[in-house]
Amino acid sequence: MRYSKLVGQTLMNPPSDADSRNAELLIQAGFVRRLAAGIFSYLPLGKRVLAKIENIIREEMNAVAGQEVSMPALIPIENWQITGRDNVDISFKTVGANDREFILGWTHEEVVTPLLQEFVSSYRDLPLAVYQFQAKFRNEPRAKSGVLRGREFTMKDMYSFHTTQADLDVYYNQVKQAYFNVFKRCGLNAYIVEASGGAFTDKRSHEFAVVTDAGEDTILVYEGSEMAENLEIAKAYVGKRNPDEAEVEMGEIAVDRGLTVEANAEAHGVPAWKILKTVVYKIDEGFVGIVIRGDLNVDMDRLKKYFGAENIRTATDEELVKLELLKGYISPVNNEKIDFIGDESVASVTNYVTGANKLRTDYVGVNLARDFVLKDVSHFAELDKKMLCEFGNCEVEVYKAVEVGNIFQLDTVYTDAFGMAYNDADGVQKSVVMGCYGIGVTRLLGTIAEVCNDGNGIIWPKTVAPYQIHLLDLGNEEEVKDYATDLYTELVALGFEVLYDDRDERAGKKFNDADLIGIPVRVVVSGRNLKDGKLEIKNRAGDEVMLLNKVDTIKWLNEYYAS
Amino acid sequence: MRYSKLVGQTLMNPPSDADSRNAELLIQAGFVRRLAAGIFSYLPLGKRVLAKIENIIREEMNAVAGQEVSMPALIPIENWQITGRDNVDISFKTVGANDREFILGWTHEEVVTPLLQEFVSSYRDLPLAVYQFQAKFRNEPRAKSGVLRGREFTMKDMYSFHTTQADLDVYYNQVKQAYFNVFKRCGLNAYIVEASGGAFTDKRSHEFAVVTDAGEDTILVYEGSEMAENLEIAKAYVGKRNPDEAEVEMGEIAVDRGLTVEANAEAHGVPAWKILKTVVYKIDEGFVGIVIRGDLNVDMDRLKKYFGAENIRTATDEELVKLELLKGYISPVNNEKIDFIGDESVASVTNYVTGANKLRTDYVGVNLARDFVLKDVSHFAELDKKMLCEFGNCEVEVYKAVEVGNIFQLDTVYTDAFGMAYNDADGVQKSVVMGCYGIGVTRLLGTIAEVCNDGNGIIWPKTVAPYQIHLLDLGNEEEVKDYATDLYTELVALGFEVLYDDRDERAGKKFNDADLIGIPVRVVVSGRNLKDGKLEIKNRAGDEVMLLNKVDTIKWLNEYYAS
Repeated sequence: MRYSKLVGQTLMNPPSDADSRNAELLIQAGFVRRLAAGIFSYLPLGKRVLAKIENIIREEMNAVAGQEVSMPALIPIENWQITGRDNVDISFKTVGANDREFILGWTHEEVVTPLLQEFVSSYRDLPLAVYQFQAKFRNEPRAKSGVLRGREFTMKDMYSFHTTQADLDVYYNQVKQAYFNVFKRCGLNAYIVEASGGAFTDKRSHEFAVVTDAGEDTILVYEGSEMAENLEIAKAYVGKRNPDEAEVEMGEIAVDRGLTVEANAEAHGVPAWKILKTVVYKIDEGFVGIVIRGDLNVDMDRLKKYFGAENIRTATDEELVKLELLKGYISPVNNEKIDFIGDESVASVTNYVTGANKLRTDYVGVNLARDFVLKDVSHFAELDKKMLCEFGNCEVEVYKAVEVGNIFQLDTVYTDAFGMAYNDADGVQKSVVMGCYGIGVTRLLGTIAEVCNDGNGIIWPKTVAPYQIHLLDLGNEEEVKDYATDLYTELVALGFEVLYDDRDERAGKKFNDADLIGIPVRVVVSGRNLKDGKLEIKNRAGDEVMLLNKVDTIKWLNEYYAS
Repeated sequence: MRYSKLVGQTLMNPPSDADSRNAELLIQAGFVRRLAAGIFSYLPLGKRVLAKIENIIREEMNAVAGQEVSMPALIPIENWQITGRDNVDISFKTVGANDREFILGWTHEEVVTPLLQEFVSSYRDLPLAVYQFQAKFRNEPRAKSGVLRGREFTMKDMYSFHTTQADLDVYYNQVKQAYFNVFKRCGLNAYIVEASGGAFTDKRSHEFAVVTDAGEDTILVYEGSEMAENLEIAKAYVGKRNPDEAEVEMGEIAVDRGLTVEANAEAHGVPAWKILKTVVYKIDEGFVGIVIRGDLNVDMDRLKKYFGAENIRTATDEELVKLELLKGYISPVNNEKIDFIGDESVASVTNYVTGANKLRTDYVGVNLARDFVLKDVSHFAELDKKMLCEFGNCEVEVYKAVEVGNIFQLDTVYTDAFGMAYNDADGVQKSVVMGCYGIGVTRLLGTIAEVCNDGNGIIWPKTVAPYQIHLLDLGNEEEVKDYATDLYTELVALGFEVLYDDRDERAGKKFNDADLIGIPVRVVVSGRNLKDGKLEIKNRAGDEVMLLNKVDTIKWLNEYYAS
């Protein structure tokens, strides 16, 4: 492809209204354009990357016996009524001729289950797995993060059908490995995270997360493991600190102690995490007590986000007096002076020590639910990876991450809804067990851009780069142009994918554009080097420039792309 | 692929509710399933055919410098308001977050024009052409004809942008040839037909039509030409019969003649087509005169369709008397007794002879518009290919046909709407000239099924067949099974696409299924022939069965698929 003819030239500057790094990079380099919030067009460069990602996914899905199909986006409302998902917020609805209502597919259990039902009657017909690549539609209240979270996006969704949970388990693990293969082949380092499943299921499910500051999730990555934990359900955070300790009776005892957690723990001879700490905040016009494990601190940003309030501060001593709360001895036990809301950590300890709302008096053996209740529980704690390690017994890193794929065990929720059953070898009719597996293809493209870049632009992994070679000529000498044109023809004939920047532009502009676009290898034809019969080869990712003659250049390229 | 594992086994009988031959064939053979009227899922076999058709189209579009992109289906209503197409009947509409309205794309001028506008400022930036494969949405009042006319269907749409009409003309002809290539490579014999353009444009446009009884159009195919004419605008029908004759003054003359057209023509010494004939019909409770060229007859079905009435008959002599119309001398000239509606043929003759609404009196030199007007003009004539040939001077066949592609010259309608202009070499700003080019990919699949079949099932052209070889084994002998399994592995390793029917089914069932599915070559492993070291090879399209040893079989297959 000659760059002068390519639809999608680079921009001088990143777009000022981009909502994310991936949107900046992809728009400036000419891969995508935004049509509306969360709705993008893919220009030829972007389309080529998508096709390569799709081919990688296709190969991996075929390798686990997935069969490619194509289901419609217009799904009759009746199908969604059967599963009770006909009024999910993120649905785009439309009405067709004869007042027939449709939901634009945001997932396809409601289509694939009745579709495959016809072909399954006996245990001999199972297992089966089908997948498709398709535009999905989600009416997101706020579209953001560039192509990472769109209202229309391309998805690979696969659905598998099994006789038993055990058979699903085996297949689920195969797909898990196939997913790791996909992300690795796309140049990404993905972690697998246990997920809650959202609107899909309460059953076991996993997300695949890639570390990037653009991510909406926070994950805890454990040293030397491909497993990670989503902060919200991380065991290191909310897991039991003293699971083996039985609940004791609550008692009230006199103490002589300082007012800090440390002083309190020392006085009782317990670790800090066994102290139940309460901090009173003034939020707009009201007061609330945040209850948290003694070794943790409240994160003001999380507090503000939870309350949707800007004016939050700890209560003053005078305010505490007015509220009849005794500084250093405040707790939610036997206390109706204010509302108490807890951090999720509160549930992780048995037999807390805490103040009794009386001077020099503490409760011991205090347990959540039995001795006190909270108006709500959420995540308010500041993260401290040292604290996590202390318990997790390994190095932990806390990262922002983006979910690039997810896999779900759907049990028989959808097969039962549609009555998809099979006759087992023993003649008994049983429900088909189902799994589903998604990868956001456009999101994956955005994630790669988000992760693989430097100050100068994108650095595409060679497996998904729009072209393999960015060829450019410098200067307008006829000899250089002719040589570059011949080289372009020769490289294409050899089977390389070449983007040839044939423009009459100054060298700086051409180099900058090559960096922005991010093709893995740059080959430069210049009059200066041509005199010595040399070409200039550079890896987009590195700094080293090689001068090689044509034969060695081709040899180097063959080796680079063979591996 | 092992047939026993394939999602989409054949049905014993064609579906009873299929609305077309293509739906019957494709559903029974396991290529598609209907989700709702005009909305289909493509099973693995169907998806494979779609992918092959897409690849053929992709190669041909790339060959005319088309660049593949991907535009969204959700298109903001604002874009359609700019072109005034925001209230077209066949639009599916939906409303998203913040009450934003969208139309699901049924065409993409409203997206591609502003998208490419950004990249075009100078004549040097042109020409450009981009295309995409995408699900399109049309809210058809009645979906019918299987996958030929869907509410959701896959489309290849290309858009080209040019400095001048002359440049568009050159490109338009290149695409025309590329389209012929596509249809030929898909095994179809397509004719190019001048089209009216429908909702798109009044400018020059062409359709590509494939002859099949399932078609909604009627075309006139001229012997030895790839051009055909749509009946509605066929020149042989509405073209001038006597273009060189100048209009003369109208005169009234006395005649002594019979009442038939033939008698009239003989009396005046003119051909039958020079007689202007009027037939009065009783339509429900009213009367209307249908005016038609003397050599043509009114087709009652067309008349019924035009008036949307069931009760239509010619007026009786008594009724004509009541209407004060004189049988044999009725004409629309100087006659306000009833309304007159004309067949399109009326415009094709200069200087008619017709009755003067008086006994033994005729008008001569009668001309449309000058001497009489019609309330409306439509197509009412019965077709008679002999009549057409007489004028067209070549053999003409009248066929039902389906439109599989269309190409449009859009002039500057959409570029002007979006203000897409360029600076010419002379520094003057000019409007960009645009063309657009569509192929219904799913419709093409349906057309192939509709055209390429026999009483036993589909006969796929080898370029688009889901697999190249339908391998089957007969009987359950271990030796046969082992041989077939090894042969399957070997053929796949050689690069052939093989569907291996490994089921324990009787021979008749396996042969029937192979015929239904329609893979071009069937290879049978049987104990009987294996004794002689032979395999049985048969072309789906023919009757001949060959017995070849394995080496010769592979040689034959290589030759068959090389050509």
